[in-house]
Amino acid sequence: MVKLVALYTTPPDPDAFDQHYRETHLPLIERWPGLRRQEAGKVTGAVGGPAPYYLVAEMYFDDADALRAALRSPEGRAAGDDLQSFAKGQVTMMYVQVI
Amino acid sequence: MVKLVALYTTPPDPDAFDQHYRETHLPLIERWPGLRRQEAGKVTGAVGGPAPYYLVAEMYFDDADALRAALRSPEGRAAGDDLQSFAKGQVTMMYVQVI
Repeated sequence: MVKLVALYTTPPDPDAFDQHYRETHLPLIERWPGLRRQEAGKVTGAVGGPAPYYLVAEMYFDDADALRAALRSPEGRAAGDDLQSFAKGQVTMMYVQVI
Repeated sequence: MVKLVALYTTPPDPDAFDQHYRETHLPLIERWPGLRRQEAGKVTGAVGGPAPYYLVAEMYFDDADALRAALRSPEGRAAGDDLQSFAKGQVTMMYVQVI
């Protein structure tokens, strides 16, 4: 199993971000071919200092090929375009192999 | 459901880190009271640049009280002490509310 992990920093307008993420971005992600499940979580704090991120989102796939195919699909590109519209420069995305 | 998310930067000796994480640290975490499940993943790359982290580890609990109780338990403190022994200054730990 592999996952795409997206770490979002705190947005300028958290309420607008939350609404866009929930009502627009998540429905785009849920259409990705090969997506096994997604999980999003709000950061509520950190150990020993301020939290460096606001939201952690994870998209799970069977393997790296399936993840790559999803990102290259029309549905993946639509989500990427949407990301640029509401979180440009505010997200770090990593490929992760679950061990 | 809440989770503790640990983001580890690349260690000086990845092989030694991996062995310690797997053989010593993970068994300590698996003894935490109230732990529902844990998931660890190796970062294999990032979108648009070098990956800022090496390992993403997540520990799931029913709620924030259960997470706090685990961290304060003898088993939680043992894992915290162990963390200082092999990853001091190399980990960011966040509290996350799954949405």
